[in-house]
Amino acid sequence: MYKVKVYVTLREGILDPQGVAIKQSLAQLGYSEVQDVRAGKYLELLIEKADRDLDAVIREVCGRVLSNPVIEDYRYEIEECVAP
Amino acid sequence: MYKVKVYVTLREGILDPQGVAIKQSLAQLGYSEVQDVRAGKYLELLIEKADRDLDAVIREVCGRVLSNPVIEDYRYEIEECVAP
Repeated sequence: MYKVKVYVTLREGILDPQGVAIKQSLAQLGYSEVQDVRAGKYLELLIEKADRDLDAVIREVCGRVLSNPVIEDYRYEIEECVAP
Repeated sequence: MYKVKVYVTLREGILDPQGVAIKQSLAQLGYSEVQDVRAGKYLELLIEKADRDLDAVIREVCGRVLSNPVIEDYRYEIEECVAP
């Protein structure tokens, strides 16, 4: 069993309205030292060992379902773990 | 300047409808080896050096704005970086 941690972030230069909103909220609350906020997604997948190549499966899943390749980048980490 | 990476995840036992929906989509697309999906948030904050303690500021920001402490946990990493 593998635990795969996927981080999806907006590409550089893509406007991030959620990040802007969070930054403005923080400024209003007095956290003016926060200069920039970028919001993204964090996903944990539990994947069974299979015949297919794990990296290929993760790349397919990330590109087809978990991220929008036009505006988002992703990176991932694989941890081997025992089945729960 | 510090780059702070914040990971917000649902606490164990809290139902994650987004994760369930992603898992079902993946099963329909043939990725039946994906046993479980948990969805969370990933945020990157750029924070200026200030008089206040950085860890205290981050904990306040995470608890008040970035996460809902009733149902979510968070963890963070701090990287020192040069101002862009």
